[in-house]
Amino acid sequence: MIKGKDGSIIPKVVIERLPRYYRYFDWLENQIEKISSRKLGELMGSSASQVRLDLSYFGDFGQQGYGYNIKKLKNELGNILHIDTPMNFIIVGAGNIGRALTRYNAFTRAGFKLKGVFDVNPSLIGEKINDVQIYDAKELGPFVKKHKIDIAVVAVPKETANDVARVLLENGIKGILNFAPMDLDLPNSFPVENIHIIDKILALSFFISD
Amino acid sequence: MIKGKDGSIIPKVVIERLPRYYRYFDWLENQIEKISSRKLGELMGSSASQVRLDLSYFGDFGQQGYGYNIKKLKNELGNILHIDTPMNFIIVGAGNIGRALTRYNAFTRAGFKLKGVFDVNPSLIGEKINDVQIYDAKELGPFVKKHKIDIAVVAVPKETANDVARVLLENGIKGILNFAPMDLDLPNSFPVENIHIIDKILALSFFISD
Repeated sequence: MIKGKDGSIIPKVVIERLPRYYRYFDWLENQIEKISSRKLGELMGSSASQVRLDLSYFGDFGQQGYGYNIKKLKNELGNILHIDTPMNFIIVGAGNIGRALTRYNAFTRAGFKLKGVFDVNPSLIGEKINDVQIYDAKELGPFVKKHKIDIAVVAVPKETANDVARVLLENGIKGILNFAPMDLDLPNSFPVENIHIIDKILALSFFISD
Repeated sequence: MIKGKDGSIIPKVVIERLPRYYRYFDWLENQIEKISSRKLGELMGSSASQVRLDLSYFGDFGQQGYGYNIKKLKNELGNILHIDTPMNFIIVGAGNIGRALTRYNAFTRAGFKLKGVFDVNPSLIGEKINDVQIYDAKELGPFVKKHKIDIAVVAVPKETANDVARVLLENGIKGILNFAPMDLDLPNSFPVENIHIIDKILALSFFISD
């Protein structure tokens, strides 16, 4: 449970919206100095009251009748999201998705450091992608422990995803970004974010056919 | 606005959960015949009443005191999600993410047919990935129109994402799965699903640091 500045519990959905605010401020900062909650809501497709409520959890950023100072708010949100504290991460699975993520520069730009990639395929082990080494999946546990890895991106087939998650947890991983098309069997409060690509396209195909 | 069997409006969040139910039924169908809303809720990390409410929008699937017939429910959900009606799609952007998605077999397994990939890079145009041709981005509009493409996966840099979206819309695309790290400028009710990888890992990094 994560608490805001005034001690109230911050809903998970609010936290998940913060990176989106950060993105907007990052984009706005070179264009204007301040913005009203109404304008910001319009831009982001939500309401002024939603914006005010979301941001109120993290302190008193806005000024009545003046609007939000964009640069200040961006910096504050950056601190909250630990943009400036480099976190390290690994990628488990060097298949299509894992390899693409290894080359995905946006992680580096957002302050995440890729420390290694892991796979079971002997023909991949030892290979380097952009200076990042592919290690034998057998070394996963000790590596996570030794290098104090913060986050693991799981991009393995669903058949092995839970085994991978177990090894990660036993060795002190703090959070998982899961691309395997299933829900991992994790303790209730464990930080996990799922990216289920197929769920998204199936939902789309429902929306577009009447 | 999408309406359920009894005419009530189905919330978007409910629809977005349906593929997840489908995944669970697909997995359960070879193991057991029926399941109670309580058990299903436990498995999926939600409550029995949530499960009953979600599924009630789509008809009377359950039987009081008996539980849900898994095979029947899977088939019904499959119909609702149009699993059996093949949809065709294209991928715009043959960068890291676009190329990985081109090779991502799960789309085919879920009934989606990849008709082409588009890029602006002359050295990629004409290349084939798994029998799928990379076309010049200039041909995007006419291609979408001619081949009646249902869905476009947008995997281009954020600087060009809105230009791509505009061309897609003008040529009759029905839905967009957006990987570009921004919100596309689309009409309010237009079917779009976003996969913002960086937002997810930023939210994670907030959750894991106290």
